[in-house]
Amino acid sequence: MFFEDFDSVQLKNQLSGNRFRVIYRLSGEEAEARNKATDICTEQTVEFPVRFLPSGAIREQIVGCIERFEQQNETNWLATISYADEIAAGEWTQFLNVVFGNISIKQGIQVVGIQPSQRIIEQLPGSRFGVDGIRKLVKIPMRPLLFTALKPMGLSARNLAKLAEQFAEGGIDIIKDDHGLSDQCFAPFEERVLRCAAAVHEVNARTKRNTIYVPNITSPIELFFERAVRAKELGAGGFMVTPGLVGWDALRRLAQMQLGLPIIAHPAFIGSYAINSQGISCRVLFGTLMRLAGADATIFPNYGGRFPLSQEDCREIVIASREKLGTLPAIFPCPAGGMELKNIRDMVQNYGNDMLVLIGSGLFSYSDNLIDNCRTFLEEIEHSCLPTN
Amino acid sequence: MFFEDFDSVQLKNQLSGNRFRVIYRLSGEEAEARNKATDICTEQTVEFPVRFLPSGAIREQIVGCIERFEQQNETNWLATISYADEIAAGEWTQFLNVVFGNISIKQGIQVVGIQPSQRIIEQLPGSRFGVDGIRKLVKIPMRPLLFTALKPMGLSARNLAKLAEQFAEGGIDIIKDDHGLSDQCFAPFEERVLRCAAAVHEVNARTKRNTIYVPNITSPIELFFERAVRAKELGAGGFMVTPGLVGWDALRRLAQMQLGLPIIAHPAFIGSYAINSQGISCRVLFGTLMRLAGADATIFPNYGGRFPLSQEDCREIVIASREKLGTLPAIFPCPAGGMELKNIRDMVQNYGNDMLVLIGSGLFSYSDNLIDNCRTFLEEIEHSCLPTN
Repeated sequence: MFFEDFDSVQLKNQLSGNRFRVIYRLSGEEAEARNKATDICTEQTVEFPVRFLPSGAIREQIVGCIERFEQQNETNWLATISYADEIAAGEWTQFLNVVFGNISIKQGIQVVGIQPSQRIIEQLPGSRFGVDGIRKLVKIPMRPLLFTALKPMGLSARNLAKLAEQFAEGGIDIIKDDHGLSDQCFAPFEERVLRCAAAVHEVNARTKRNTIYVPNITSPIELFFERAVRAKELGAGGFMVTPGLVGWDALRRLAQMQLGLPIIAHPAFIGSYAINSQGISCRVLFGTLMRLAGADATIFPNYGGRFPLSQEDCREIVIASREKLGTLPAIFPCPAGGMELKNIRDMVQNYGNDMLVLIGSGLFSYSDNLIDNCRTFLEEIEHSCLPTN
Repeated sequence: MFFEDFDSVQLKNQLSGNRFRVIYRLSGEEAEARNKATDICTEQTVEFPVRFLPSGAIREQIVGCIERFEQQNETNWLATISYADEIAAGEWTQFLNVVFGNISIKQGIQVVGIQPSQRIIEQLPGSRFGVDGIRKLVKIPMRPLLFTALKPMGLSARNLAKLAEQFAEGGIDIIKDDHGLSDQCFAPFEERVLRCAAAVHEVNARTKRNTIYVPNITSPIELFFERAVRAKELGAGGFMVTPGLVGWDALRRLAQMQLGLPIIAHPAFIGSYAINSQGISCRVLFGTLMRLAGADATIFPNYGGRFPLSQEDCREIVIASREKLGTLPAIFPCPAGGMELKNIRDMVQNYGNDMLVLIGSGLFSYSDNLIDNCRTFLEEIEHSCLPTN
């Protein structure tokens, strides 16, 4: 009655029939959970009461469709809802909106799985390097990689380069900026990247190793892509990006630009999605979304450190970093957040060799000699390493 | 012992002594809450054990400082923590990181207040139009403004323009795209904005009113600023942006570009921060942060509709949209999310005249004549309007 001039046939012809799927965990009694599933189908698409919709293609194809509904446990249900590829418009921003836009403001809903269609995956850059690409860069074919961070904030660029030099000397494979280092007056971006990259290259020339320095390029959006290009010119071996700060879409765009260096994603600012029961599961947030957006390694707060994730949460992130996802390569999970040498054996047993073991301030606690401490880290990794991948 | 070459005097000279403050609600027993406060001071800055820090300026000025610690209620404490302006580096991305980066992954912490220093406010664009600027555009000096959305998704650009025409004819002040309309093949951005803006301008010419059409420009970051410029060329009267999708920093950058049109912010995808006890309070998320980032109006899910916010949450958002925040103007709160005509009186009583009343699909439920329904909406607003601001 309101949309007499709506042409359902025309719309139908514009839709391919391909759909992507999202799995939601819904809490409550069965009837309540079923209502939530039905509500999601309209809230994430037409935002309109079905009774007022014109008949035809909008009701049949634009409104989300419950493909599956099953009990997970006493108080939770799993609903698989499919959406027409075309409503994501080939845009990562709109894809995220369909997955969890308005319903991020509703109770008792958690995104626990994303099954993008082949077309959606083709539209996204996805990870370009992944595990194999990063291993080739540092020329370490099998063991877990040694990963650390330049800190504390407040040091000068010169101080940080000195640290980088010691880390490289001690055998760290990947040295990143602490994620809080951006362009502070006491360690400006340009000077920091120049000095740290140079320090690492000098050590590499001597040791014949292939340590890379990965600066944090998270920055105001008008500088972000510029900083990536500049970092590469200055000798960076990768980029660290915090999508929660610069935007998920900035990460996606950076990956799409194919600057020829791997991207390591940092989890800051997005924790609220993961540690609350309403939100996005750790598996999807730190695994699936990071891969789709183009990260080659995903830093996550490992259990047993300073953060509250459970062993099960962490195991799921690692699974998500490797499971089949279209044609995308497996990426490196990077357990972090208060890890120490004593955690290594457990990490390797649980996660296997394909990971970056991030030990930051933990590296300072063994002796006064940072180079020695790095060597102990390497020994511990080599001792714990599994015989095969 | 690790940082012999660190020069504390040099760092001290680089710091202005100006600090910004963040208020955190911390849950638990007093001792636990105090520990959390202490932990935040390092986690958000140096990410390093204090015992290993060099003495001097890093300990004294870079590490966050607990300015105040008080009991809020039986299980909650309020800690005011200050940070040196310089660690935010003049960057909105890094400012957000200091406020809630890593601790977004920790339990029992909620950001409930932000007190930026004058310098931080000067570095940010902040709202440019605010309430007064938008009122001048639509030439409505006092009453609440009528706000609606073009939907449902699936309609063609031509269909949507027809709707826009009827809304304008009926007296709506601001007509926005539904936030899910981006650049779908069935209603492409360019054609949609062209047709809808033209339709509204034609009606305005006839009615001598000043209705504005506000398209959704949320889009991939490489297209976002382009779409803003193009939307203005095509006759848009403002921009709708979802910072959760395109990035908080894209909103900030858009405001800074001063394109001469107001920005309306949409809350999609960031709900998880607000509806969980761990996160960012509604007041800060939908109020303070939106103003600092440059929104001129903030859409929020009002209580009594389809979303779970409490009356108190909503009242706080409205307060935050108007309270003193440096020299920034008050912005329009936009109660939304399943509002109907029957909610208007209550909204006006609670929030006053300075708001955009967003009624979307509710406008379809009164009669088959959309123009008549808009007129009823206008009458209801005029009847409910308070005699003064």
